[in-house]
Amino acid sequence: MKKRRSAVYPGSFDPITNGHVDIIRRAGILFDEVIIAVIVKPSKKTFFRTPERISLIKNSLREFDLEKVKVVSFSGLLVNYMKEAGSEIIIRGLRAVSDFDYEFQMALMNRKLSGRVETVFLMTDAKFSYLSSSIVREIAGMGGDISALVPGCVARKMRGQIK
Amino acid sequence: MKKRRSAVYPGSFDPITNGHVDIIRRAGILFDEVIIAVIVKPSKKTFFRTPERISLIKNSLREFDLEKVKVVSFSGLLVNYMKEAGSEIIIRGLRAVSDFDYEFQMALMNRKLSGRVETVFLMTDAKFSYLSSSIVREIAGMGGDISALVPGCVARKMRGQIK
Amino acid sequence: MKKRRSAVYPGSFDPITNGHVDIIRRAGILFDEVIIAVIVKPSKKTFFRTPERISLIKNSLREFDLEKVKVVSFSGLLVNYMKEAGSEIIIRGLRAVSDFDYEFQMALMNRKLSGRVETVFLMTDAKFSYLSSSIVREIAGMGGDISALVPGCVARKMRGQIK
Amino acid sequence: MKKRRSAVYPGSFDPITNGHVDIIRRAGILFDEVIIAVIVKPSKKTFFRTPERISLIKNSLREFDLEKVKVVSFSGLLVNYMKEAGSEIIIRGLRAVSDFDYEFQMALMNRKLSGRVETVFLMTDAKFSYLSSSIVREIAGMGGDISALVPGCVARKMRGQIK
Amino acid sequence: MKKRRSAVYPGSFDPITNGHVDIIRRAGILFDEVIIAVIVKPSKKTFFRTPERISLIKNSLREFDLEKVKVVSFSGLLVNYMKEAGSEIIIRGLRAVSDFDYEFQMALMNRKLSGRVETVFLMTDAKFSYLSSSIVREIAGMGGDISALVPGCVARKMRGQIK
Amino acid sequence: MKKRRSAVYPGSFDPITNGHVDIIRRAGILFDEVIIAVIVKPSKKTFFRTPERISLIKNSLREFDLEKVKVVSFSGLLVNYMKEAGSEIIIRGLRAVSDFDYEFQMALMNRKLSGRVETVFLMTDAKFSYLSSSIVREIAGMGGDISALVPGCVARKMRGQIK
Repeated sequence: MKKRRSAVYPGSFDPITNGHVDIIRRAGILFDEVIIAVIVKPSKKTFFRTPERISLIKNSLREFDLEKVKVVSFSGLLVNYMKEAGSEIIIRGLRAVSDFDYEFQMALMNRKLSGRVETVFLMTDAKFSYLSSSIVREIAGMGGDISALVPGCVARKMRGQIK
Repeated sequence: MKKRRSAVYPGSFDPITNGHVDIIRRAGILFDEVIIAVIVKPSKKTFFRTPERISLIKNSLREFDLEKVKVVSFSGLLVNYMKEAGSEIIIRGLRAVSDFDYEFQMALMNRKLSGRVETVFLMTDAKFSYLSSSIVREIAGMGGDISALVPGCVARKMRGQIK
Repeated sequence: MKKRRSAVYPGSFDPITNGHVDIIRRAGILFDEVIIAVIVKPSKKTFFRTPERISLIKNSLREFDLEKVKVVSFSGLLVNYMKEAGSEIIIRGLRAVSDFDYEFQMALMNRKLSGRVETVFLMTDAKFSYLSSSIVREIAGMGGDISALVPGCVARKMRGQIK
Repeated sequence: MKKRRSAVYPGSFDPITNGHVDIIRRAGILFDEVIIAVIVKPSKKTFFRTPERISLIKNSLREFDLEKVKVVSFSGLLVNYMKEAGSEIIIRGLRAVSDFDYEFQMALMNRKLSGRVETVFLMTDAKFSYLSSSIVREIAGMGGDISALVPGCVARKMRGQIK
Repeated sequence: MKKRRSAVYPGSFDPITNGHVDIIRRAGILFDEVIIAVIVKPSKKTFFRTPERISLIKNSLREFDLEKVKVVSFSGLLVNYMKEAGSEIIIRGLRAVSDFDYEFQMALMNRKLSGRVETVFLMTDAKFSYLSSSIVREIAGMGGDISALVPGCVARKMRGQIK
Repeated sequence: MKKRRSAVYPGSFDPITNGHVDIIRRAGILFDEVIIAVIVKPSKKTFFRTPERISLIKNSLREFDLEKVKVVSFSGLLVNYMKEAGSEIIIRGLRAVSDFDYEFQMALMNRKLSGRVETVFLMTDAKFSYLSSSIVREIAGMGGDISALVPGCVARKMRGQIK
């Protein structure tokens, strides 16, 4: 009998981009369940509030198998949330221009904090290699067109919020 | 008949350093016109105000062919300014210790935002490889001697402002 | 019902090191089957011949669940072997001092050659970050002690071969 | 009156790839003439002989403005060839996964060897970020399909040579 | 007669970690005196105040030869402090995931500011490659267990301060 | 009483460059003795034979304090030679464009092979950041002028050997 494997994809998702959607789709092929875990840091100012970020993720994933993908928020240590969620697999997306040092530092630290947790790195499509939530916020803030960078619902919401 | 080629060198120039001057000199050999475009971000605190930054750039470039070099400021998306200025070439300086990932992300994103725009990377002289505006501000702020790092007019102005 | 997931860990394994064993152990937790696929390149000179490399891998993995781990050899394109093996997951180990550029180039190229194939990157333990087959061969070749770097059977075999 | 600017794009082109063609197209917009300069190193074994490499480049560039693009071969120091060709601009393509260190070392060294020579770096399209001549040779050598990676004439020629 | 060599290890030490202690131990073998110099930047908010940081460093180094190790604080330019302390050697720790670009920029700049000053880079143990003061503060701030990352006195102090 | 500290600077020195001389000069300030240790690998083809490499190093260092600098050759494991020489300090030069991954791998491995050995990294002058023995051989081989890159005796010897 096969083991059911659940993986957690943590991030700020402020907002979710087409690059994130690409990673979620890839993770969905590899694991039986993908939990998108929105990090809530009370001290950090975000563009969208947590319920908005969750709702935009859910809208962006409408075409996905909903039994497979779950969207949650958590605060505190990721490894503590993992235990609670019963998952031992963290998913991180790597772009050709990622901050590897940061990613590796976090992966090694999470392994130190919980020996059972494994970080799995997936590569986004090369065409998303320039894409990040912060660059989307920057372009939208200057009135640029972000419709090719994020799901439709996100583009509409940002346009409304900025005007 | 040859095409007249105009290139834009965007940056904060807070303040202009000897490394910037080196890149402007190199760009002046490659293109018929070099537009130094000072980025104005209302939300970002700078050491020098925009008119000061422009005036320091102009003073620093006195020995240059003035018909060739133009100094302007702009706000909003760089690709929008490019269109307005009628230029399709962005110049960026690379130091051996540059933040390549950031430079590449911006270059790819600008290409995405405007298919006609091309980013051209030039290398600064090896002797400027440690030099950046932020390190100049840091050293000047602690009372260090910056006269070998920036044009004379900048060194004088910073000394006045800090004391 | 859960899907059975088989993953391929390709490499030269000339010879298998403790770092490889670490990655295989981690992969075994993530997937239902791990196929260790020894690359055979007729044009490339190796230290151990293919049957020796396979036999050393098998001996090194004695404590592992043998139904889960399989050792094979293949020549030609990896994506062709993947199809034959019925797997769509490639495993690669990353060390803090890996050649990321090469790894990313291969991952993107394999994705180009077969849209169905996904590369999953796992991190070795920090204590193996210096370890590679080539450094093991170099040290053994100069008479150095490799017993802490490779499984016991490999250390014995190399010692025999070099003396 | 505008100055006529000629730029040299040096490389082994063994064989020319779609990534090279992309850089040549971009360079053609920036400069009045682009000289594709095939490096001939008697001591280095290549897949295609020099006349074949030149002929494949010429065939690949049929749609280009032929007055603008020139294909030559040279041996010895690049800076010596530059002087002979009357050009002071070297073009190099950067991929997100380039070997920057090597590129920078060569650019600094060429500047040292000839103070008048400037290296200009252009970025290939993100979709070619995995592409290099050596990976093309490797895939073709294992019977893989390279038709999406190189111009049609190159794919046909390699297939003929390998079978 | 041998020259007495004193080296300065500058940093924020907010707080001192096991990685810092490892570098201090290594530096103590290489030089006759190691001065741990806590940087005081009035404009920068720190977790621990300067006297606390100094006292935690001293407590962490109790097992060390106290004649050899000295703990001080300084503000302003490091090269000015070096002159005052009569030392010409700066020690910096490199982790496999360090920010090399920043380290090199600072080292080259310090050399520019004072031709007599030399930066010496030492490598931390691989098992500390993920460790930094900021990641310790982040984990402690979320209630994580930092007792394996910092000396005992630091762990106790942080626990007290956060609760 | 101060401890006498001897450091080993290992390398191929095929040939010694101005960058090597710069590192040796810096190391001479930091340590009481610097042993330049020429690696002899019977299987590796070099441009200069070992006695020539040693003699060129000695000639290049004529202005140095000869009691302080020693030139030797060794084969086999570096850590074994260190023990023989009674030294526990390895010196390595870092250039802004160094192969850090390789340097770190070797440093960690040497520490693994001998817990007592410490690798100390020094930075070359920024103006030598492009310089390596292999680039010198390449330029000399194509008839380029290397007189600004290597000590005079090396330039003369290479010119004689190549013509």
